[in-house]
Amino acid sequence: MTSGGALIGVSVLTAGSPTWLYQLSKTGRLCVPAINVNDSVTKQKFDNLYCCKESLLKGLKRTTDVMFGGKQVVVCGYGGVGKGCCASLKAMGAIVYVTEVDPICALQACMDGFRVTTLCEVVKQVDVVITCTGNKSVVRREHLDRMKNGCIVCNMGHSNTEIDLESIRTAELRWEHVRTQVHHVIWPDGKRVVLLAEGRLLNLSCSTVPSFVLSITAATQALALIELFNAPEGRYKHDVYLLPKKMDEYVASLHLSIFDAHLSELTDDQAKYLGIKKQGPFKPTYYR
Amino acid sequence: MTSGGALIGVSVLTAGSPTWLYQLSKTGRLCVPAINVNDSVTKQKFDNLYCCKESLLKGLKRTTDVMFGGKQVVVCGYGGVGKGCCASLKAMGAIVYVTEVDPICALQACMDGFRVTTLCEVVKQVDVVITCTGNKSVVRREHLDRMKNGCIVCNMGHSNTEIDLESIRTAELRWEHVRTQVHHVIWPDGKRVVLLAEGRLLNLSCSTVPSFVLSITAATQALALIELFNAPEGRYKHDVYLLPKKMDEYVASLHLSIFDAHLSELTDDQAKYLGIKKQGPFKPTYYR
Amino acid sequence: MTSGGALIGVSVLTAGSPTWLYQLSKTGRLCVPAINVNDSVTKQKFDNLYCCKESLLKGLKRTTDVMFGGKQVVVCGYGGVGKGCCASLKAMGAIVYVTEVDPICALQACMDGFRVTTLCEVVKQVDVVITCTGNKSVVRREHLDRMKNGCIVCNMGHSNTEIDLESIRTAELRWEHVRTQVHHVIWPDGKRVVLLAEGRLLNLSCSTVPSFVLSITAATQALALIELFNAPEGRYKHDVYLLPKKMDEYVASLHLSIFDAHLSELTDDQAKYLGIKKQGPFKPTYYR
Amino acid sequence: MTSGGALIGVSVLTAGSPTWLYQLSKTGRLCVPAINVNDSVTKQKFDNLYCCKESLLKGLKRTTDVMFGGKQVVVCGYGGVGKGCCASLKAMGAIVYVTEVDPICALQACMDGFRVTTLCEVVKQVDVVITCTGNKSVVRREHLDRMKNGCIVCNMGHSNTEIDLESIRTAELRWEHVRTQVHHVIWPDGKRVVLLAEGRLLNLSCSTVPSFVLSITAATQALALIELFNAPEGRYKHDVYLLPKKMDEYVASLHLSIFDAHLSELTDDQAKYLGIKKQGPFKPTYYR
Repeated sequence: MTSGGALIGVSVLTAGSPTWLYQLSKTGRLCVPAINVNDSVTKQKFDNLYCCKESLLKGLKRTTDVMFGGKQVVVCGYGGVGKGCCASLKAMGAIVYVTEVDPICALQACMDGFRVTTLCEVVKQVDVVITCTGNKSVVRREHLDRMKNGCIVCNMGHSNTEIDLESIRTAELRWEHVRTQVHHVIWPDGKRVVLLAEGRLLNLSCSTVPSFVLSITAATQALALIELFNAPEGRYKHDVYLLPKKMDEYVASLHLSIFDAHLSELTDDQAKYLGIKKQGPFKPTYYR
Repeated sequence: MTSGGALIGVSVLTAGSPTWLYQLSKTGRLCVPAINVNDSVTKQKFDNLYCCKESLLKGLKRTTDVMFGGKQVVVCGYGGVGKGCCASLKAMGAIVYVTEVDPICALQACMDGFRVTTLCEVVKQVDVVITCTGNKSVVRREHLDRMKNGCIVCNMGHSNTEIDLESIRTAELRWEHVRTQVHHVIWPDGKRVVLLAEGRLLNLSCSTVPSFVLSITAATQALALIELFNAPEGRYKHDVYLLPKKMDEYVASLHLSIFDAHLSELTDDQAKYLGIKKQGPFKPTYYR
Repeated sequence: MTSGGALIGVSVLTAGSPTWLYQLSKTGRLCVPAINVNDSVTKQKFDNLYCCKESLLKGLKRTTDVMFGGKQVVVCGYGGVGKGCCASLKAMGAIVYVTEVDPICALQACMDGFRVTTLCEVVKQVDVVITCTGNKSVVRREHLDRMKNGCIVCNMGHSNTEIDLESIRTAELRWEHVRTQVHHVIWPDGKRVVLLAEGRLLNLSCSTVPSFVLSITAATQALALIELFNAPEGRYKHDVYLLPKKMDEYVASLHLSIFDAHLSELTDDQAKYLGIKKQGPFKPTYYR
Repeated sequence: MTSGGALIGVSVLTAGSPTWLYQLSKTGRLCVPAINVNDSVTKQKFDNLYCCKESLLKGLKRTTDVMFGGKQVVVCGYGGVGKGCCASLKAMGAIVYVTEVDPICALQACMDGFRVTTLCEVVKQVDVVITCTGNKSVVRREHLDRMKNGCIVCNMGHSNTEIDLESIRTAELRWEHVRTQVHHVIWPDGKRVVLLAEGRLLNLSCSTVPSFVLSITAATQALALIELFNAPEGRYKHDVYLLPKKMDEYVASLHLSIFDAHLSELTDDQAKYLGIKKQGPFKPTYYR
C-alpha cells in the first residue's frame, strides 16, 4: 500500500510470505510495517479448513470421477488444510491415513481417528495421495515408484513443489495428457499414476473456491490495509504484526447474516466477570 | 514452585487463572515469572476438545440414561469445550443449536453445521441445555421458566457459576434429590427440570476424565515447572509466558506410541526450505 | 429377454417398474416371469444410497458451486436416495430437514438427527430443496412462491414429475437459461429460484454415476437374465420374483477385491449353528 | 398367547427364534400361527441399529473408562447391531475394522469406510474386540492368545456363545474379578485380556437400553399378539408371518411426537400415482 508514492505498509495472505517477512524483520531489513493476515483466525480456520474441505471433493470428482466410499487415501500434513481434507474424505466414506512431522498435529490426527504413518508404509496400498504440507518434495520418486496402478496424486498444499515433478520428468516415463488437468504418468511396465494439475494446487486449478470464503479472506485483507493506512504515526513499527483480534471478529460478524445466525450479547455483569468489553475483542490475541 | 523457601515461579492450568495473572502483570504486581499452560496447544486442544467430547456422553448417560438420537440440544459456547460437546452430540444423532457472543466462534459453528441462535429462541423446544462458556449466569431464571417438562440442564464450562442457581433456590420451587448428582427442580405447575451436579462441572462430577488426556495435561504442567526451575537467571521476567512451543511438541511426541503412530522426519533440504530445525519447533508460537 | 423369438422373461431395475409389474401380475396379465431387481439389496443399498451420496455433491457443485457448510437444506423423502443425500449433506456441514409421508422412514430420520417437518414449514428459510420421493408434484407452486431469492431446487428422485413444472411455466414468470442445466425462474418482484436440469434427475443430468456402482447394478441385472434363461421349466411362473439372495451375495462378492477386503469363512460348526450352508445364502430372502 | 386354555399363536422377538420357527414350519411341526416380529423394520432398525449405537458407548465407558479417540477396534459382524456399533465408534474417533462372512454386509462396510479384514489379521494390533455376529465361537483361543496386553473383549451380538469361554477357562490362565462385570484373564507371561460381562451381552449386562427403543419394540410385540387374537379364522395358518407393514408403520407413527416430527400427507392424486392408500401401508412388505 502506497501513499503519495511512498510505501506505507504490507499485508500478506499466503502461507509462505509471513516466514519471509519475519526473516526480513529479524535481520532489520523490513522497511515498512507488515500485517500477517495469513495467521489470522479467519484465514486459518475459514480459508484453509472449510474451503479445502469443500473444494477437495469437487476437484477430485471433476477430474477423475473417483468414488470416495471405501477408497484408501493418504493425506500428507495435518494442518488446517489437511484437517479439512481429512474431514470431508472421512465423511464421504474414505479410509484416511495421515503423515506428519509435527507431533502436535500428529496427535490431533490420532485423536480424530486417523492412523498416523509414514508415506513409505502406506504408499503401496492407497488409491489417492494428497499433499497438504507447505513443504517441498514430500512425494518423491521412491514413493511414486511404489504406487499401485491407477493411484491418483494431487497437491492441496501450496505452490507446485510438494510433489517432486523433476523426478518423474525422465526419459523412461511416458506422460499422457488424458484430459484437462489430468496426466497419466506411465511406467515402463505399463503402470499409470494419475497426476492432477501437474502438481499445482488442485483447489485453484481444478476446483473453485466458495465465494463466501473468498469474501471472508478479502475482507480481512482489506481491513488490514485500511488499518495500516489510518493508523496514527507510531502505532506500527517496521515489524510484522498479527491482525488485531478485534478486526478478525469484525470480519466474522459481517458474515453471519447469510446463515441467519443470531449472536448473544454479554450483560454488563458478564463482561465485567470476564474482564472484557461488551463489544469485544472477546479473546486474547493468541487465541485460535 | 519454591527453591530454598523462595517462590521461583508459577504455572497455571485452569481457564480463569491466566486472566488473573495477566491483570497482575499489567498492574506490576506479579512478583514471579508465570507460565500460562492453560493456553498451550496440548491443553486447549486435547484437554478441552477431546476430553469433553468423550466425557459429556458418559456424564449424561450415567446420570440420566438419555437417548441422544433425535434429541434437541442447545450448547452455550463454541470454544474448545463447546466444539467437543457439539461434535459428539451431532455424531450420536442429536440436533444441536449453539449460542455464542464471539462472532468468530459463531461463524465456526455455522460452517460446522450448527444453527447459531440465542438461548431465548430455542429454550422452549430443547431437551438438553449445556453450558460451556467460562462465563457466569448464562442460564437464568427467565430461561429455566420456559424450559419444557423433563429438560436436562448441566454445565461443562467452568466452576458452578454458569447456571444461575440462586434464581431457582426460591420458596416456590421444590428440589427433589432423585439420585446421585441428579436433582429435579419442580415448578408449582408440576414441571420438572433435571439439574445435574447442582450446576457444577458434569465432566468432573458425573463422569471421568480419560487418563490419557490427564497424562498430556500433567506432563505439560510438569515441564513448565521444570523449565522455570532450570531456566538461567534472566530468561523469564516477572511476566506471563506461553509454554514454549518446543515443550508442547515434546509432550505430544511422548503420547504418540500408544496409537502406534509413526512420525515422518524432515530431510535437511525440507527443514532449510521451511526455515526451521529438523527437530522442531515446527510451528510459530502463535500457532494453534 | 427372448429365445427363438419368444419372450422368456423380464428383469426390471427402475423404481416405478415393479409396481407396474405387480399390478399386471395381480390382474393375471403378466405373461412371462419377471425378476424385480430394483428391490434387490445391492440395488437398493448400493445404487440408491451410496451412489446418490456421492453424486448429489458433484451435481450441486458442478452446477451452482454452492458451499455446503451452514446451508439449510430440505430433503423430501427419506428412502434409500434420501438417506444418501442427507448423509453427505450433513457430513459436509449442511443443516438438513426431512419431509416424509411414511412414519417408519420419518422415525429413522429423527433417530439419525434430522428434523422431520413439512415442506410448508421450512420452505421460506432453506437454501436448497431436493426431492427424493418417487412421487409427483411434491414441490408445487405454493412452495415455489414462498422460497427465498436464490433458493436452489433439484430432483434426485425419479423422472421429472417431482417438481410441478407446469405450475411455473406461466406467463408471469420469466425463465432465464444461465448455463448448462441451470435455469433461473424469475418472479415479478425479481426473486430468482435456481432450477437444476429442468427438474430431471440431477445425478443423471448434472453429475456422473460412479462406475463401480454401475458395475454392481449391471451385474445384478445380467445375473437375473441369465437365471431366467437357464431356469428349468417351471421354476418361475408368470409372476414377479425378487432376486434370489444367493445372486445378490454373489454380485457383492465380485466387488470386494477392489477394496482389498477379506471375507471370513464359517466353520462347519458355525454353519450348523446358524442352520445355513457355509457358502451362503447367509440371510433370509426378506433381509435388507 | 392362549384363549380359554388353548394356544392361539406365537410372536417372537429375539434373533434366534425365527430360525427355529421356520424350521418347525418347514417340517410341519408348527401347531399355531407365528409372527416373526424380530424381522420387522422397527425391530431391526430401531432396536438393533440405534439401540446398540447408544448402549455400546455407555457399556464400554462404564466398565473400562476407555477413551475412544484413536483406539483401534475390530467389530465382528456388520448386520444391524454391527452397523450401530461401528457408527458410534467411528463418530467418536475410533479406527474401526470389520469382519464379515456375508459379502453383501462386507461390501456395505467397505462403502461406509471400514476396512474389512479377518480377525486373525488384526487381532494383534487392536485395543478392543466386539462381537455382533449372532454366531458361536467367533473369538477363539487362537485369537485371544494373540491379543495385546490390555485388549478389551466384549459381546454385543446374542447369548454368551460368541466368545469361546471354555477355551480360556483353563488351568494355565488366571481369572481376576477386578470390578463388577469386568474380569482380567491373565496369561502365564502376565498379559491381561479384559473380558466384559463374562461374554454375555454388554448392552444388557453393563449398559441400559433407551426406554424409547424399548417402547417401540414392546409396542410391536403387543400389536402382533393383538393381531393374532383378533384375526378372523383362517387369516393365519400354522406358518410364520412377518409383521404386516401397516402395523410396523403404526408403531412408528406413535413414536414421532416425542421428536416434534410432522408427517406430510399424500394428496389423492399422489396416492393414486403411487398406487397406494393415503393412510398407507406406504411400502411393500419386503421393504426394509
